[in-house]
Order: sequence, then C-alpha cells, then structure tokens
Amino acid sequence: MDETSLRLARQLVTSRYVDAAEEALRTDASEVHSLLAQRRLRDDGMSDALVESLMMQLSLMDSNNFPSRCGAGEREGRVLSSLVSRRHFHMSHGIGRSGDLLADQPKACGSSLVGKIANIGVLDAIRCAGCKSCEDAIVVPMATGMTISLVLQSIRKARPSTARYVLWSRIDQKTSLKCIEAAGLTPLVMNLSPIPSEGSSQSFYGITPATVEEAIQRVGVENIVCVLITTSCFAPRIPDDPLRIGRVCVPHGVPLIVNNAYGLQSPWIMKRLQAAFEHRVVEVMVQSTDKNFLVPVGGAVVAGVEGRVRAVSELYAGRASASQSLDVLMTLLGLGRRGYLNLLASRLRVRDAMLNELATFAKERGEELIVHPHNDISLAVTMRGVADPKSIGGKLFRHQCTGPKVVTMDTTTELCGVTFSAYGSHCDDVEGRCPMLVMACGIGMEVAEVTLLLKKLRLVWDAPTLPAPVEAPTV
Amino acid sequence: MDETSLRLARQLVTSRYVDAAEEALRTDASEVHSLLAQRRLRDDGMSDALVESLMMQLSLMDSNNFPSRCGAGEREGRVLSSLVSRRHFHMSHGIGRSGDLLADQPKACGSSLVGKIANIGVLDAIRCAGCKSCEDAIVVPMATGMTISLVLQSIRKARPSTARYVLWSRIDQKTSLKCIEAAGLTPLVMNLSPIPSEGSSQSFYGITPATVEEAIQRVGVENIVCVLITTSCFAPRIPDDPLRIGRVCVPHGVPLIVNNAYGLQSPWIMKRLQAAFEHRVVEVMVQSTDKNFLVPVGGAVVAGVEGRVRAVSELYAGRASASQSLDVLMTLLGLGRRGYLNLLASRLRVRDAMLNELATFAKERGEELIVHPHNDISLAVTMRGVADPKSIGGKLFRHQCTGPKVVTMDTTTELCGVTFSAYGSHCDDVEGRCPMLVMACGIGMEVAEVTLLLKKLRLVWDAPTLPAPVEAPTV
Amino acid sequence: MDETSLRLARQLVTSRYVDAAEEALRTDASEVHSLLAQRRLRDDGMSDALVESLMMQLSLMDSNNFPSRCGAGEREGRVLSSLVSRRHFHMSHGIGRSGDLLADQPKACGSSLVGKIANIGVLDAIRCAGCKSCEDAIVVPMATGMTISLVLQSIRKARPSTARYVLWSRIDQKTSLKCIEAAGLTPLVMNLSPIPSEGSSQSFYGITPATVEEAIQRVGVENIVCVLITTSCFAPRIPDDPLRIGRVCVPHGVPLIVNNAYGLQSPWIMKRLQAAFEHRVVEVMVQSTDKNFLVPVGGAVVAGVEGRVRAVSELYAGRASASQSLDVLMTLLGLGRRGYLNLLASRLRVRDAMLNELATFAKERGEELIVHPHNDISLAVTMRGVADPKSIGGKLFRHQCTGPKVVTMDTTTELCGVTFSAYGSHCDDVEGRCPMLVMACGIGMEVAEVTLLLKKLRLVWDAPTLPAPVEAPTV
Amino acid sequence: MDETSLRLARQLVTSRYVDAAEEALRTDASEVHSLLAQRRLRDDGMSDALVESLMMQLSLMDSNNFPSRCGAGEREGRVLSSLVSRRHFHMSHGIGRSGDLLADQPKACGSSLVGKIANIGVLDAIRCAGCKSCEDAIVVPMATGMTISLVLQSIRKARPSTARYVLWSRIDQKTSLKCIEAAGLTPLVMNLSPIPSEGSSQSFYGITPATVEEAIQRVGVENIVCVLITTSCFAPRIPDDPLRIGRVCVPHGVPLIVNNAYGLQSPWIMKRLQAAFEHRVVEVMVQSTDKNFLVPVGGAVVAGVEGRVRAVSELYAGRASASQSLDVLMTLLGLGRRGYLNLLASRLRVRDAMLNELATFAKERGEELIVHPHNDISLAVTMRGVADPKSIGGKLFRHQCTGPKVVTMDTTTELCGVTFSAYGSHCDDVEGRCPMLVMACGIGMEVAEVTLLLKKLRLVWDAPTLPAPVEAPTV
Repeated sequence: MDETSLRLARQLVTSRYVDAAEEALRTDASEVHSLLAQRRLRDDGMSDALVESLMMQLSLMDSNNFPSRCGAGEREGRVLSSLVSRRHFHMSHGIGRSGDLLADQPKACGSSLVGKIANIGVLDAIRCAGCKSCEDAIVVPMATGMTISLVLQSIRKARPSTARYVLWSRIDQKTSLKCIEAAGLTPLVMNLSPIPSEGSSQSFYGITPATVEEAIQRVGVENIVCVLITTSCFAPRIPDDPLRIGRVCVPHGVPLIVNNAYGLQSPWIMKRLQAAFEHRVVEVMVQSTDKNFLVPVGGAVVAGVEGRVRAVSELYAGRASASQSLDVLMTLLGLGRRGYLNLLASRLRVRDAMLNELATFAKERGEELIVHPHNDISLAVTMRGVADPKSIGGKLFRHQCTGPKVVTMDTTTELCGVTFSAYGSHCDDVEGRCPMLVMACGIGMEVAEVTLLLKKLRLVWDAPTLPAPVEAPTV
Repeated sequence: MDETSLRLARQLVTSRYVDAAEEALRTDASEVHSLLAQRRLRDDGMSDALVESLMMQLSLMDSNNFPSRCGAGEREGRVLSSLVSRRHFHMSHGIGRSGDLLADQPKACGSSLVGKIANIGVLDAIRCAGCKSCEDAIVVPMATGMTISLVLQSIRKARPSTARYVLWSRIDQKTSLKCIEAAGLTPLVMNLSPIPSEGSSQSFYGITPATVEEAIQRVGVENIVCVLITTSCFAPRIPDDPLRIGRVCVPHGVPLIVNNAYGLQSPWIMKRLQAAFEHRVVEVMVQSTDKNFLVPVGGAVVAGVEGRVRAVSELYAGRASASQSLDVLMTLLGLGRRGYLNLLASRLRVRDAMLNELATFAKERGEELIVHPHNDISLAVTMRGVADPKSIGGKLFRHQCTGPKVVTMDTTTELCGVTFSAYGSHCDDVEGRCPMLVMACGIGMEVAEVTLLLKKLRLVWDAPTLPAPVEAPTV
Repeated sequence: MDETSLRLARQLVTSRYVDAAEEALRTDASEVHSLLAQRRLRDDGMSDALVESLMMQLSLMDSNNFPSRCGAGEREGRVLSSLVSRRHFHMSHGIGRSGDLLADQPKACGSSLVGKIANIGVLDAIRCAGCKSCEDAIVVPMATGMTISLVLQSIRKARPSTARYVLWSRIDQKTSLKCIEAAGLTPLVMNLSPIPSEGSSQSFYGITPATVEEAIQRVGVENIVCVLITTSCFAPRIPDDPLRIGRVCVPHGVPLIVNNAYGLQSPWIMKRLQAAFEHRVVEVMVQSTDKNFLVPVGGAVVAGVEGRVRAVSELYAGRASASQSLDVLMTLLGLGRRGYLNLLASRLRVRDAMLNELATFAKERGEELIVHPHNDISLAVTMRGVADPKSIGGKLFRHQCTGPKVVTMDTTTELCGVTFSAYGSHCDDVEGRCPMLVMACGIGMEVAEVTLLLKKLRLVWDAPTLPAPVEAPTV
Repeated sequence: MDETSLRLARQLVTSRYVDAAEEALRTDASEVHSLLAQRRLRDDGMSDALVESLMMQLSLMDSNNFPSRCGAGEREGRVLSSLVSRRHFHMSHGIGRSGDLLADQPKACGSSLVGKIANIGVLDAIRCAGCKSCEDAIVVPMATGMTISLVLQSIRKARPSTARYVLWSRIDQKTSLKCIEAAGLTPLVMNLSPIPSEGSSQSFYGITPATVEEAIQRVGVENIVCVLITTSCFAPRIPDDPLRIGRVCVPHGVPLIVNNAYGLQSPWIMKRLQAAFEHRVVEVMVQSTDKNFLVPVGGAVVAGVEGRVRAVSELYAGRASASQSLDVLMTLLGLGRRGYLNLLASRLRVRDAMLNELATFAKERGEELIVHPHNDISLAVTMRGVADPKSIGGKLFRHQCTGPKVVTMDTTTELCGVTFSAYGSHCDDVEGRCPMLVMACGIGMEVAEVTLLLKKLRLVWDAPTLPAPVEAPTV
C-alpha cells in the first residue's frame, strides 16, 4: 500500500479512515526503518500481523515471485506443493551463495534480507543478554554440534599443518564430543576437578586453569587446533569460565572456543563471556537457536570476533536453508528487546520457585538439593534413599515429564574412542557420590509447570514399589 | 518495503539485487494501482505470494492491528485464538456499518477495502461472463436463499402496502421457494409448460410469457411484490428467459427478480440476462459465490440496477462477515480476467465430453439422453430399463459420486404450504414421462472426472441386481 | 494414526516411544469422546495442535476430500484457490441443508459435525456464564441484526395474520432498530424512564413494566408480533430486565425476545436471563459471536427455548457458511470451560481497574463518573467542563483509541421512519443532562489497555485548545 | 476420528453420512498402512487435506504436544511464536538423537516418523527414477556441498591415516570444490578431455577413465580419500560416467563418490548410476532436495550402499532440523509415484521444445546449438556474433530471466588454492572455442516458460546496441 494506492483507496473508502490507516502504516514502516538503520531490535515487539506482512513483503523480493519471471537453469525456486510453499511464506531460494552464508543471493534479495536481519537480531539479543562486546553473530542452519565442527574446521585452516588435537574439558553430553570427530579431528579429554556445592555433601565439577595449562604443554602448541570449553551444562557440573581459561590460552597463541549451547539465559555465564570478549581471550562461541530462542530444533548461532565469524560463514559449502533464520527472525521481531528481556527475567523467577519447591521436596525425603551459584540453570536432588533410581526416569517419561535425567555412578560409556566412567556425572571419581536426579529450568518454563513437575515427582518417587525386579538395585 | 526501507536495504544487500527486487515490487504495485484506478480485474492473475501479501497489507490498515491501538468499547476486533486470527489474515472487524453492507467501517479501513475490491471483482467477472450492462454488484455474506429474501424485503418496501405475493415460476429446489417464506411473503406458483427436448421423447419444461401475464392479471398488480424467475436449473427444466418475462412485467410495473444461482457459467443464460438488463426489464439477479467462483459455501452476489443493489445493501441489519468477500477476492485476484475466462471455456469443453460420453452410454443401454440447447449446464438420461431407479442414486453416493440425482415421477412433496406432484421433475404432469438420472457439468469439473463418472455409472447401473427387495420397483 | 498404523510405526521407530505417543493420542481421543458423549466443553482447553488436528480430521469426512470423489452436480465443494482452501481447513460444503441450519449435509459429514459441536459449545458456554436453564443454542452465520430479523420472522409465522408491530424498548443503536425493518415489520418505540445512577447527578434510563403493559394494551395483542428488549447496552442505559418484562408479556400471550448482543459477559444480565428462562417468560435471546467469543465479526447465537430455536433454524433459506461455527468451535475448544470462566472473571477485574482510574480522572477535572450496578459493562464520564466535547471523540480515534463515544444532548436522528431526540442518550428528555463520554469494558480487554486509555484520555482532554473553530461549542 | 468417536458422531449426524465418511477415512488410513507396510510411495498422490491431516496426526505424537506434558530440561520443544509453531505443524523437536540422523528421538515419535517416511519416499523416488539397485537413502538437512563434506569425512575415517587427497574431476561450480575444503581435505584436480558435440564445432568435455587411473597411480592409493565425480552438470560438460570410472577405482580399493546434485531427472545419468550400483563400483551419491523435489533450498539426499549411508548418518553431530524432511515428505505424498514419474516425463517434453526453439533461434543468427546426448539437462548456444556477450547475462537478469549463464573463455579464477582458466567452460584449453550462453531445462519448467524465454532472449540479443560503453567489448 504505497502512496498511490492509498490515494486511489480514498476513492473507495472514506478519506479520514484511510488517513488513520496511513498513519498506522507509517508507524509500522518507521519500525522497519529503525530496525534496518540502527541494526538492533526495536524495544517493543511487533504483532503477528505485522511480522507476517513483513515476511510476505520480503518474499515478493525473491525472483521466484517476480511477476514475469522465467527460469532456464537447474534451480529456479520452483516449489511444487502449495502446503510447502506457504509454510515458507513462498520463499524458496535459501540464503548465501556459492558456499558463503553471508554472501547475497542474486536470485533472492528478500531471503538475503531475512538472513541479514536475523543476524542483526541475534547479535542484538546476545548483547541484551549481557555480552556487549560480542562483535558479530550469524545464524547457521545446522545443529549446534555440526556448527561447532564447522568452526573447528575454520580454525584448523589457520593452525599449523600438524595441528589435530582439540583440548576438550569433559562434559557428559554426546554431541559435545562428536562435533570434534565430525570435523575429522582428535579430542583430548581434560578432566574436571571437584568444587564444593552449596550446602550439600555432593560436589560440583569444573575445569581448572591449571589443567588447561598442563594439557597445552603436554600436547604441544603446534599439535593443538584449539581449546574447546562448555559453559551451559547440567548439574553437577559448573560452567567453564571463559575468562580464566582464555587467560591460559592466549599466551600460547591457542584459540579458545566456547560451546555455549543454551547459555544466553544464564546471567553468570553471560557476565563471564562478556569479560572474556572484552579482554579478547576468546574467539567464538556457539549457541543453539532452539534452546535460546524457542524455535524448532535445527539451527545454531556463531558469535564472537568479527573476522572469525566471517571465516566460518565462508566455509559453509553450498547454499543454505533460510528456514532457521526465518524462525529466529519472526520470533525476535515478535518479542522485541523488552519481550526478550522479560523472557530472561521470567526464567529466573521460575528457577527460584523450582529451587524452593525442590528443596522442600528433598528435605521431606531426607535427600539433599545440589546447587551451585555458577550454574543457575541446572540442579539435582540426591537419590540416596531410592531403591531403584533408574526406574524413576522411565516413570517420569511415562508420565509425560521430559527433561529430568537420572545419573547413577555406575555407567561406563565409550564415545569417539574415549572411555568414560560414571558417565553423566562429568567425572570418573565416584568416591562418596550417590545417584541423583538432574533437572534444568530452561527459558520458556512456567511456574505452573514447576507445580506439575513436583506433583508428578511426588507421585513417581513415593509410589509403593511394584513387585521387585529380579536384578539388584543399582546403588 | 517503501523507498526508505529499500534504501536502507541497500546497505545490507548488494544494490543491484535490491534494484531488481524494487522493479518487481514496482510492477506488483502498479497491478494494484490499475485494479483500484480502473476498477476491473487485471488480465493476468496474481501469484499466491502477491495475493497473500496484499491481504496482509490490507490487514495492517484495520484498527485492531494498529501499533498503539487501545480499545474501550464492546467490540474492538480482539481475536482470542491465533488459529482463528491467522485464518482471517488477522482481519476481524467485518464489513459495513450500522446495517449497510456498503458503508465504510471506521475501525477497519483494510476490511472495507477487501469488501469494495471484491465487489469490483465480481462486477467485472459478471461483465466478462457476458452481462456488460450490469451496473453494480455486491457480495452478501449469506446463502443465496437468504439473500433473495433480503432482495424481496427490499422490493416489498417500495411496493403498495397490500403487496404480499411473489409470483414464482416453479423450480423443484427447496431453497428457491423457502426464500419467499423467509421474507414473510406468500409464494404463488406459476406452472411450467412442456418444451420438446433435442432428439428425445422426453420434454423439457419452462415458463411461458402467457403464464406470467395471466398470473399478474389474476392476482392483481397491487398485491404483487414481484415476479421471481430462475435461470440456472437442472434438467428437464430450461432457464427462464428474463427478457421475454421482463417484457411482460414492465408494462404492469411489476419488478422482475432473477435467481441466477449458478448461471454465470452459462453462455445462453448470460446472453439473455444481458439482453434483459440492456432493455431494462429486470432489476436484480442473485448468484451464489461458491457455485460461480469456487469458494466455500456461504455467500451470494446481488447484481443489477445500481439503485436496487444499493437499496439491498442498506437493508442488511448489522455488521457483516468479511469472510466471503475475502474468499472471492483472493480467488478472483489469483485468476485474473484471463483465468476466469479460461475457467468458463474449460467447462464448455468438459460439458461436450460429458455429453458425448453419456450419449454413448445411453445408447448402449437403449436409453435416451435428454438435453436442450437452452440448458447448457444440466442434462439427464432416461431410466426406463432400470428396475430400481432410486437405488442407483444411493449406490452412486456410496461410490463417492456426488451430484447425480434420480428423479422418479411418483414423489409428492409439501413445501411452504404448497403441494408438488412429480417433485424433482418441475411439472405435475407425468403423462408419458419416465424416471431419469439428472446430472450437471458445473464450473471446475475436469475431463478426468467425466471418465471417472462414466466408470462409476457403468459399475452401478450394470451391476447384477442383488437379492430383490420386497417392495415393488418405483416405475 | 489408528492401531494398525501405530503397529506398523513400531517397525520404524522404537516401540516404547510409540507407546508413549499412543498413550497421548488415546488421551486426546478420550477428550473428543467426552466432548461428543457428554455434549459439553471439557474443563481444560486443547492445544492449538490438537484443535488443528481435529479440524483436519473432520475435513477428511467431507465428500470433497474423499479419496475417489467424483462430482457431477452444480456444487461439489471444489475450491480453486489453495489459499482459500487452506484457510477453511479444506472444508467447503457449509452447514445445513435445503434451508435448515440444523439439517445434516449429506456431502459434508465433517462440516456438519463442526456445526453441531460448535452449537454444543456455545450452549455450554451460555450455561457456564450463568444461564443454566437455556435449552438450546445455535450459531447463525449472519450478523446479530439479521439474526434477530430471522427470529422475528419465525415468531411472526405463529402470530395472528394481523400482527405486524414489534414493541421495542428504545436503545440508541442503529442495528437494534433496523433488524425490525429488515424483517418487514413495524417498530413501535417504548420510551425509557430515568433511573438514578450511583452517586451522580446524571440519571440512567430503563424500561418499566408499566410502559410495556401500557403499550401492549394500546396496540392490541392481535397486532403485536412480540416485545423486543435489549440487555447489553451502553451507559446511561441499564439492561432491560427480562424477568420483570416477561411477567408482563406472558399473561397476554405476547412473545418476549431479548437482544443480548454482548451480554454473556455480564453477571447481572445472565442472572436475570436465567431467572426469566427458569420462569419461562422469555422465548429466545440473540447474541453476537464476535462480542462474546472474540472471533471475527459476522455470526450470532440464537439461544433459548428448544422449539423456538429449532423453528428459527428451519427458516434459514439456503445452505449456510460454516466459517462462523469453525471460528467459535476452535476458540471454545482452545479455551475449555476453565479458560472461558477465566476470561469472564478477568473482565470483571479489568472493569474494576477502569472504574477506579476513571473515577480519579473525573474527580481531578471536576467531572462525575456515571455508573449503575445493573450495567456492569459500560460507564460514562460527564463532559460539563469540556469546551468542544465532540472533538474529543475524533481526537481519541486519531490516537488509535477506539470504543469511546461522545454523547451530546443535541443530536436528532431519523431511523426507520422514527425520529429520535438526544440520540445516543437513549431518552428524548434533556432536562438537566450534560454531554458525556461513554465507554465500555468488554471481554478480552487487559489492564495494560486501561492504563493506555487513561494516558490517551489525559492527553486529549487536557490539550490546550487549538485555534477555536467558528461554530459555537455544542453545550 | 476413531471408532468410538464415529459411533458418538452418529448421535449427532445422520448415520449413513457418517458411514460414507467412515469409509473414506478407512481408505485414507489404508493408504497410510500401505505406505508404512510396503515402504514405498503410493501410486496416487494424496490431497492437500490428507497430507496436512497426516502431519497434524504425527505432530500429536511429539511430546511437546502431549496433553499433560511437563518439561524440566534445557530443550522441551517449546515454541514461542504461534506463526513459527504453525509453520512447522507444531512439531519442534527435530530428528535424530545425540548425533545420529537415523536414531529415534524419544521426545518426538511423530517427528521421527516424518524423518523415516521421508527417507522411504526419497529411496522410492530414486528407484522410480531408474536406480533400482540403490539400497538406502536419507534426507540430510544441509546443503548438498556440506552433505558431500560429511560423506567425505565419513569415508576418510575408514581410510589410511595418510589419506588426505580427494581426486576431483573438474567441474566449474564453486560448491563442488569447496565441499572438499570444508571437510579439511585437499582437492586434486583431474582435467577433462574434449568430446565432440552433436553437429557443432564446439566440443563438450568429460573425464576419461585413463585420467582417473593415471591420477590414482600418481598420488598413491594410501594418500587418497576417494574419487569424487559429478554427473549433473552444465554444458559444455558431460556427466561423468560412474560405471566406467568405478571400474577404475574398484581394483585399487579407492572409494567412488558421486555428486549427483540434480541428476535424478536425467534418464541417461540414472541409467549409468543404476549400472554402477548394480556392479557395486560406487558407494554413495549425493543429491539436492530442492533441485530434484522442488522444495525450498537447504537439504540433500545421501543414497547408495546401505552401510555407507548409515555411517554418514551416524557422523552428523547434534540433533537435526526436521524441516527439510517435512518439505520432501509432503511433496512426495502429494505427488505419489505417478505424479513423480509425470514430472520427470514432462521435463523431457519441455526439454525437446526448448531444444527445437533454440536450434531455430541459433540458426537464424548464424550461431550453433551445442548439445550432447549424454547431457540431457543442459545445452548452450554459441555467441560468436555477439559484440558484448557478458552484457547479455545482465540484461536477461534484469528481464527477470534467471538461469542462463554467459561463459566467455577469458575468466581466470582462484578457488580453494587452485587456479582455473576459462572458468565456466570446464577446461583450460581455449583453442577454437568461443563464448556461449549456457542454459538448462530443469524439472518443473513449463512449455510456456520456454516461449517466454525465447521472447526475452530475442529482445535482449537483437536489441540495437545502446551508446557504446567506454571499455572495449570482451571478445
């Protein structure tokens, strides 16, 4: 509805109603101008109507929607199914070009803008979440693990030809390790040290700078691709501290990479990442789009030092899906800065509720709550008095309760050629440790869910034991 | 994407790609300008992407989508369910105001435009279909029957206070009669006369001018609200001829109303309606939106003399749904003039195929095809040799074949206080008549469907009779 | 996903994951069973995913979606535009048959169920809202005004042939009167009497039983179609009391009809309607779907005594749109009983906030708040000290504030042949009355909107007067 | 709508209409049963209504849509934006688990089925397209290039530790080379040899078995990861022949990988691939989803020997997007086998039309058409007589004509550390070669587009040269 259309519309509809509409359209347009000009999210979120309208306008800027288009190539943006076409807002050409995620796609100006504005949005969200020194950010349409692989490949290119080891601080989550293998590199495990938890007999575990220093010296700088640490993690592990570890890496010229999968929601983590970027001791951090922005699974965000982010974007081979950028963009436009900050603040309130409820729950049953101030996302409850801890997990799942994980100390696993004892507990040492139920309070969780969780937990935990299974209980 | 946005976009995406997009957007906009300025459909249809984008732009012009809206009334366009909101493209305020379908809705400039442009579209479609002298047309969000009721009420207001009869040329379709009752008026049936069909022993039936003349004189002009005739109809009835009947009504000052439910697709009907409007012997015709424009059931089009159409619009009490206008508008924009004319032309080809196939089918079975050149939509096949004609209808339905109707000559029905013999055959007289299977070739039907129809028809018709039912066969 | 599909799925996906899914599907199905068996809304609302899935399942039960469908009629549910088809969940055949809204549509079992379940839902909602004695309810796909017209026609059929007057308690809202004209009947205005408001010098107005008694006797029972009163209304009018008025009508055998446009949200109104239905002094009440269930404009609900509701459904001429039933059904399934009751409760809280804020606002400016306990939806603020009251309305509209209406005492209007003085104030008598700003707190309004409203109101009310217009101010 | 629901529905809607619907539902269900049981596409495509309904049913099988779900983890499938949720049919959990694309996702049984059935569909489509000996196929939610990288990594793991070279038959398309770099491996270019084209002075180019043999011997088997050849390609290059090349590789134990980006549509290519798989001389081929199945950009299909395909799926680090599988699945269900085969057949007809039209076009202008029977997708026209060949490409783009590429013989490019002369022509040797306009006839193209293409081509080619630019023309 440009000026000419509005003028013509006045011949069909009372002028002063068109005036009012024109003013509203002008405000809508000025929101878009600000977004593009200032390259940051607007304070207020947009309505679904405005978000959808914007996507449709961008769609018309792609060549497959041009009015007199005509294609004579192998890929002209044709979409056969109207169901498929509509779910992509009739966009089809993806983003990037010839293997560069940030290159403009000549056939798809609109999709290219979707990609660019999504990147603007995530960078702004990262800054809002506390990491103001982050210079650049891009949405990558692959899982966090595959994206870390790409980052590792990108870093390896600049390292000595002998470099093949990734020094990795242990975290008992499969993908965190597999991403190294998928890059064709070799992981070298750095073990964690115990860290007393808050008012519990059970420790948390974390990497120490000394361990990293020792590993670098042992392996030899010329053989190292980078150090890979993880921030967001499940209890009883604390986030690795990028500033302290980075200060070990920098003097050796070893790059530091952070797996920050769902760390944007943690004030403690974001504070430490900000410090690390401010002191320029870290190159890049990788986040999941779904865990941080509540979109369907399948994308990641690479953020950090501008040159490094750009180098990663240039390594992606092929033209990429715009689907993840589209989801993230629509979500962030709908939220605005205020909405995003509210989401983060709301999680902290829910986490407090969860912590209180679980403390009571544990106390009533003679168990302990295992928490640490550095890990403000995940916590655990000891299962000393539970006859068959593993069955609790299955029962919770059958009660449609997803997320909680039972960690016993007797699981040994082999992953990518490495053997791990007490898998799930982040540390081989089982001395004095007991099984535990590990949970997390992720972004988007609501207080009503805490109530429901406790209800289900009580039901499952306190249920009279059914006919005893033949096997002995696991502890 | 206004000029400022495009300028800013050039800082994000290569200028010449934005140039290409801008040119495409300009062409899209010029299509809209032409539509609004010339008040006719464009020759070429629009892509789904453009149609959806337009709807979204119009949606932003409704006050419920205004960025800083604030409501303090009883109806502020709030929609609770996001599923519902999205299916209406976030429009919510309906069309019209205070009981006038054509009045602009102050809170909904966008929806008002949807209504207005839909009306422009249907008027243009009617003219394309052959009725160039039609002056005005509006989409009414009620069934054809209810819409005819509204038209009758509107006409009654201008008639003598004694007027309560509607002279109605018999058509054996329930709604055509019930619409008179729903208007609180009294139908007076005018019987049809036999008209020889093409090469068949079975007659067609139609109203003669003499019958109408006789009825007017018998009832008395001052007691008559109007004459109501029907064009589109099932065999063995021919369309009433609005010019010939109109020439009877005009000298008496009796208004003539045409139920043209699905007549836009018939060249014969449209030619006669054009002649009738050209000679100003008819006031208004009513069409179904679903039967003519292939949208879901529930709307009608009132078209004809400008003042009369306007009077009808002003009688609608309340604010009306925009849903029907939206469906019709999106369909017509997607078709364009060319697409609509192709649709009409395609039906004639399918009808020829159907006629040929059925002629062979009938001949093979010693039956006759019953057709008449004036009814180019519907035809019938005699069922002289069929033991239990009625069962054929049920069997076809069970074979997912909808549309065909079995007409036997032994059905008596009472409707709105009137008793009809041989109901379904349009005429009480059963002398020499036999049961028949009546079908129609409506717009949107495809040749493949004719093939499938014949296949099912053969299957059902020729099936060895199952254990004979106790009751005697119907003929 | 029937049992066979789930069994086969177990060959593709781990059995115990399919088990969990099967259990979830079983719970979903049992919700549907309860809904159908108990014919009432479930306590908890359904997720969008479940609602959409249900609509899609119902859609497959319509013949246009049958796998080997084949049509040979004039209306086979073909939809041309995929945009249109999808927005109706691929349903197309509408509801009802041959002019009966409640008749099952043979070609559309799924759509018929949509219609039936929507009716179950609204009846249950009405009962939840307080009117437990309501026997039946149907969604009618026409505006409230047109629906009242249909009700009036239906009642007229059972009245003496001389009956043509509708005794109508004045309410200054256009459609309320036009619906009588659209039915071809004659309104007879019953004037309101002043009723002291709560702590204000300005009166409210309402109909008295004596006025109704007098009107019935004056006009004569045999000339009366019915008495039509209105409950939900803007200040300074109070809802008509159906019990007290009904007790006047019943002895005369005059039917009582209630225009309850947006009354479901008012505890006072629903209590009185319940009493009236319990004592069987009222036949039918008509509600708007959009004002009560927050769906787009265009539908109404006829509710009340079973036989009367059924008679109305049987008068609708033609096959009706399913669009309104679909919107209402999806909304009510999403809400559940609990959600609907929360919505009602939430409005009362917002209304309290609005009342408090406006009381302060009025006091600060030396004005009065005009409220009455019987009208718990609408209220007004005197505008004695405002130089140009009418301009306030326009300014609020320009500030995207819809809903508030300025009522001056000097507007004379002619509507349907009747002249009204002080139009908008519901009473001709202007003695001692002043201009006022009338507002309503409708369902769906939020506390944040009250804050925004007051902000805009202050801005507009207190703005230094712009260059004085030539005309004298209106008071 | 299970049996209980249908039984209950019979209390609301006429039994025999429910019967008809039940039968239709049963047929729909049996289609699903066959799909799951026989693990192949059905012959007939499904309607949009059925496809959408199926997706919704699968969606309800994901834990985020479970009725009493409760999450206490870091990723519970929460989706914030209703626009985003709906476009994914409320599915959110992605596919795969812990870094295995084929592992079942415990929280998402429905999404897992989407992934599995999509894989069934593509395998069947590949077999329909001619490669019956293909054993397995998976949709990978990454670009073709990134997917080839993953395949290369997977193969490298099984090769000697010294292996780092990929022997690559030159193709002048960026991603084909970059995918080697992204895998951290080193490309070794194998040059093409001239192959006479059909009736033209200009040659096509292709790899010879001798070149591959020579390269393997030169580099040494222990240093080679694999041989990577390309089938689908632009003129003047012919598809590499997997059977002939494979017969060279197998005796050396060197794996052969095929980049078959858009080759499913080529009968010649599919015949040769079938022969190669039949003789087990090739391990895996990689295809683009968008170029072969007309879905938006962003996915690939890995197909071939079962163990190899599985090994690739197990290397993907992280949980993958389901978006590509969803698009492919909906498209293939909508097509059915028949629809897919028609699509392939239709392309051949359009290609013939294009060939004829271009032959005439070339002849009229004294140019030659360059075609080769092995490349049935792409062809070229010489540009000997064109003053400024490069400008033709830009002009076509500005006329919204995408696809055609101008190849001059004077472009030198450096890519991944390799320098290419005459880039775009697939061969350094420029002796006797002239500039050419290269085009392709891809799947989905229509005859009307050929007409439009020729119209635009004539316009651009024959336009009188505008004021000569300062620079000398390029040839």
